[in-house]
Amino acid sequence: MSLKSVLTYGAAFALAAVMAPAAPGTALADEGMWTFDNFPSAKVKETYGVTLDKAWMDKVQAAAVRLSGCSASVVSPDGLVLTNAHCVIACAQDLSTPQTDYVSDGFVTKARTEEKTCPGQTAEILLSITDVTKDINAATKGLTGGDFVKAQNVKSAELEKAGCGDDKTIRCQVISFYQGGEYKLYKYRRYTDVRLVFYPEYKAAFFGGDPDNFNFPRYNLDSGFLRLYENGQPVKTPQHLKFATTAPKENELVLVAGNPGSTSRLLTVSQLETLRDVTIPTQQLMRSELRGRLIQFGAESEANKKITVDTLTSLENGFKVFYGQQLALQDPKVMEAKRAEEVALKAGMSAEDKALYGDPWADLSAVQVAAKDLYLPYYFLDSSLNSSSLFSYARTLVRAARERAKPSAERLPEFADTRLPLVEKRLLDKANIIPAHERIFLEFRLLKAREYLTTDNAITQLMLGKESPEGLSKRLIEGTKLGDPAVRKALWEGGLAAIQASDDPMIQYALKIDDQALALRKEYEARVSGPTRIAAEKVAKIRFKAYGNSTYPDATFSLRLSYGKVTGWTYRGQTVPAFTQFAGLYDRATGNDPYELSPKFAAAKGKIDPKIVYNFSSTNDIIGGNSGSPVINAKAEVVGAAFDGNIHSLGGAYYYDGTINRTVTVASTAILEALDKVYDQKALVKELTGK
Amino acid sequence: MSLKSVLTYGAAFALAAVMAPAAPGTALADEGMWTFDNFPSAKVKETYGVTLDKAWMDKVQAAAVRLSGCSASVVSPDGLVLTNAHCVIACAQDLSTPQTDYVSDGFVTKARTEEKTCPGQTAEILLSITDVTKDINAATKGLTGGDFVKAQNVKSAELEKAGCGDDKTIRCQVISFYQGGEYKLYKYRRYTDVRLVFYPEYKAAFFGGDPDNFNFPRYNLDSGFLRLYENGQPVKTPQHLKFATTAPKENELVLVAGNPGSTSRLLTVSQLETLRDVTIPTQQLMRSELRGRLIQFGAESEANKKITVDTLTSLENGFKVFYGQQLALQDPKVMEAKRAEEVALKAGMSAEDKALYGDPWADLSAVQVAAKDLYLPYYFLDSSLNSSSLFSYARTLVRAARERAKPSAERLPEFADTRLPLVEKRLLDKANIIPAHERIFLEFRLLKAREYLTTDNAITQLMLGKESPEGLSKRLIEGTKLGDPAVRKALWEGGLAAIQASDDPMIQYALKIDDQALALRKEYEARVSGPTRIAAEKVAKIRFKAYGNSTYPDATFSLRLSYGKVTGWTYRGQTVPAFTQFAGLYDRATGNDPYELSPKFAAAKGKIDPKIVYNFSSTNDIIGGNSGSPVINAKAEVVGAAFDGNIHSLGGAYYYDGTINRTVTVASTAILEALDKVYDQKALVKELTGK
Repeated sequence: MSLKSVLTYGAAFALAAVMAPAAPGTALADEGMWTFDNFPSAKVKETYGVTLDKAWMDKVQAAAVRLSGCSASVVSPDGLVLTNAHCVIACAQDLSTPQTDYVSDGFVTKARTEEKTCPGQTAEILLSITDVTKDINAATKGLTGGDFVKAQNVKSAELEKAGCGDDKTIRCQVISFYQGGEYKLYKYRRYTDVRLVFYPEYKAAFFGGDPDNFNFPRYNLDSGFLRLYENGQPVKTPQHLKFATTAPKENELVLVAGNPGSTSRLLTVSQLETLRDVTIPTQQLMRSELRGRLIQFGAESEANKKITVDTLTSLENGFKVFYGQQLALQDPKVMEAKRAEEVALKAGMSAEDKALYGDPWADLSAVQVAAKDLYLPYYFLDSSLNSSSLFSYARTLVRAARERAKPSAERLPEFADTRLPLVEKRLLDKANIIPAHERIFLEFRLLKAREYLTTDNAITQLMLGKESPEGLSKRLIEGTKLGDPAVRKALWEGGLAAIQASDDPMIQYALKIDDQALALRKEYEARVSGPTRIAAEKVAKIRFKAYGNSTYPDATFSLRLSYGKVTGWTYRGQTVPAFTQFAGLYDRATGNDPYELSPKFAAAKGKIDPKIVYNFSSTNDIIGGNSGSPVINAKAEVVGAAFDGNIHSLGGAYYYDGTINRTVTVASTAILEALDKVYDQKALVKELTGK
Repeated sequence: MSLKSVLTYGAAFALAAVMAPAAPGTALADEGMWTFDNFPSAKVKETYGVTLDKAWMDKVQAAAVRLSGCSASVVSPDGLVLTNAHCVIACAQDLSTPQTDYVSDGFVTKARTEEKTCPGQTAEILLSITDVTKDINAATKGLTGGDFVKAQNVKSAELEKAGCGDDKTIRCQVISFYQGGEYKLYKYRRYTDVRLVFYPEYKAAFFGGDPDNFNFPRYNLDSGFLRLYENGQPVKTPQHLKFATTAPKENELVLVAGNPGSTSRLLTVSQLETLRDVTIPTQQLMRSELRGRLIQFGAESEANKKITVDTLTSLENGFKVFYGQQLALQDPKVMEAKRAEEVALKAGMSAEDKALYGDPWADLSAVQVAAKDLYLPYYFLDSSLNSSSLFSYARTLVRAARERAKPSAERLPEFADTRLPLVEKRLLDKANIIPAHERIFLEFRLLKAREYLTTDNAITQLMLGKESPEGLSKRLIEGTKLGDPAVRKALWEGGLAAIQASDDPMIQYALKIDDQALALRKEYEARVSGPTRIAAEKVAKIRFKAYGNSTYPDATFSLRLSYGKVTGWTYRGQTVPAFTQFAGLYDRATGNDPYELSPKFAAAKGKIDPKIVYNFSSTNDIIGGNSGSPVINAKAEVVGAAFDGNIHSLGGAYYYDGTINRTVTVASTAILEALDKVYDQKALVKELTGK
């Protein structure tokens, strides 16, 4: 359950010097989150003796699915999609009622008519990749700061519009690779009716809970199934992957096809220092305090505990991810290697390139002053408040109303015509809003704004006036009607006039702070984002000259393929085996949370085959966003769903170390055995195996 | 309310190179927490034209008081002691009952018969200082690791015993200065019946709460009064200081006499890096999560809120302190200057010294490997659990029973004969134990142990067995009878036999983990504390050769004198004036917590003189532990009680910057005006002023 909430920055290059005597810019064995148009098939052939031809690649691409924040795969001819339980837990929670608690009890269907639409969920399958680097470069040539950012956004929106038109079943997205070294237009087939088919109960999916998260051995049924629908019918998917009925062997080649969210392997030393010294520590402190609040809130009653499960799980997961990242950034070896690589790149530049690019590392270093100064004000006035869903609705309504009055190209990029359908869907879909939760979130962000910016700061005063964070959040959450989708719909359709006439306190609040929030965003783009993109592009070009396309780009939540082998690892003399079996689950159970067997697994003890492989580890290079990714063998069969990395994989945000970084997967064999013996899901087993 | 909970490490040297072109090893103007036997009177005379002679020093020393974690001063002939409200809030809470809430309502006495003993509070006045460096050095000569630590502890206990014998009214303490460069025997007159005389209500003492903490301007009546008793009668204190009736002027010389708890100005770069990368961040994350828990617990009900106030205040204070410290440690300028100073010291060593001392910086660097490896296991099995008072009682009972069976010199140093009276008093004094609170603390520490050490770790398994942190803490807290002082007394008096026969679950738990906890402590001493003390002593000796006694030692919660002047400061173009007046309090009040006027101050609005100085800032170099310290003018009159530092003073743990570091004080004038006009405390005013 560890790969979901890690979608943060954006940027992929191997810190080869840290790990092994490989040349800088050359990926190590098994390293890399490769794009489908630049996969190192020759290297795989050389290392594993397996040929992955174009047909193999096309087949996998056509079955690989991108969900909100997660990955998945089509595994039957009737649109059945395999992902992780932790990728559908929010859906299970949204579908729960006072009478039914799907999160704790599981969501099991007896017939397709019982499958229910997941609010807000979309599924996207990549159709094509087009290089648009020249178009983007032409549009931004000679521009700086905010103008550069704006031109890039406008051109992207234009290319997306040209690529997809108004077809709501298609989505186009311009994605930057190699920190601006390349731009590609990714075109997806898009499904907006995605229904929940199967989600196992919490105790089976997340046995071992937070303490075992990012650790191994593991015993988790962290899998779930969705189904794609269109016009009320399951979508026909002849391009699905076969579901394997045997586990992979030790040292066997396995591939992970999914959407790693974000890595920062191409960031420069000064950028990494800002992360290490400002961004990550500040966020970790706030995450910890909020975690304490949610745990205590959950301890107040069983009802509270239930509504907190999903949020807390993702918060704790995020905490551990950044804890591991911070450890990596604090390792002097890592920074020294990054520094050495910068020196080598600079030394290798021709006189011509020096004249053309100057010293982009120094440019990025200079940007860090503004990045650090603006970070907290920008964070508090901009993104932080969106952790309240009700505030986020209000801000979307206010901004959309203002932006839709302008021509598409003039708008904030997230409100371009091509992107409006997704904005509208997210806004208007029914969601499970919990006022008590909302108040904790909003109050917390307002409290932290006052604490970090101080009481006398102009932004604090704008955000609070004479009110206290506690009083203001209470007034807004109790007074707003935005929890009702019909109210949101009316305001969305009513446009700016309806917004301005609204007496909803949350709308009024969002209106009150919006000018200042947008001004700060503009300043941030002019002083940070813009100069960063310009300098990062230069670094990318210098890298291309030095390394060619022998490297892979940083993760950008777009489709990638990673290769590796099934194996355990040895760390400080301790060897961890590659496989766990069902027997280990029963051994590890203590009867106490989070090591309590689910009642269904307890009941199935005599029936389940204890020798079946449950979870396994492999060397694949993945990161958050890869959750739910199909783990695929050479025959293009799905042998499992990746659901975690080991503790060492957390440094993977900044470098890959093949000796200890591991992907953790729930095996297809275990999923089938559980569907059959624990959940009595004969129809699903038949759909998956044909038997 | 900011200087209380900062008592952490131990070690003072000015980072001159960062601040100004002064020579390394030379204190800057106004810098230093000087011992009374090495105060730079000549420098004060030169800078301020004021002579502080021996009579002045003796007078101040005789009236300076050390409390538990705080400082104070005797200000009347009848044993009246001035300190901060935040130094007596725990007493106000302990004395509260279901019917009376002294924390919120204040504790105001109409006659001396209403004064009540503060549980666990002691007051100590320094009588003499004796140099025992030679004795200690002789005892430890040639020893290493744990043997070195043990010999030092044994010798210290022996010297303390020789100095004070069994006289419970005297306390002897061997204190290390300059990181082991000197050892002194400090002899105190000790008072164990310390009664609460006056504590203002929370809203008056802590107006502006956590958001204003470490900020300025401020409007806080953070003061309180205690009285020393012996044999049921107020102690006669002819050596008291006079209470000033006029505020100091801008730029006037003021001195702070108190007990700064801990600074780390003499630590080496490698030691500071361990603090920056491991110790502080880990503790801050845990502090944040616990803070979230307590805030949410307090939000559940008014009753919960009340019992949480004191703990939360001190937790939030500690959080801000270390937040500021971490910022200082992350400043590359600070580390560069420290590094440059080490290089300079090394370069200045004679060949003889090199042969004698080797490279103690390299030795300390090598120690950091063990320091980092052992930090978490040692913390979790040792100190962390003491945050539950009930567990702490159990551990003290278990260890004291075992240790008292041995000769004094063979015991753990905290159970030496000279120290047993304090141990006994703390154990047996009545205290306000709140089971719900206790459960949060114990559960939290057990949860964090499992999280940071992981489930499969042997220490986690020892601490939890098959139980969950939640279940174990519930069982122990609900089952133990140690909240009852009579039960503790019986076990204390029953000794080891009573302990081993006890079926109290907390005693059994403390017994179960104690062997391993002590073994880990021994390992820590052998691999970390011992080698650190040996190498730090060598660094201290090299420093003495370079700088002589022109420097001051790091703070060690022993009596120090700091000099400075009353002034504001300018930072990034913003000038903050030195004084606030009562008028500003009424201007700043919003009606919302924590900017809500106390009802008593609201009622006194017409009566109080708005022009009277309320709080002021000065350049004195102080730190946590100095809370409640008398701020004294050249005539040895108390002009106020120091209660905070500004935000820039937090870096004072590692260096002093006289341009921006400020002490924040509540003025004697304001205290008198409030006692008179707000609280109608005519008798107290008369006792303080003679009028």
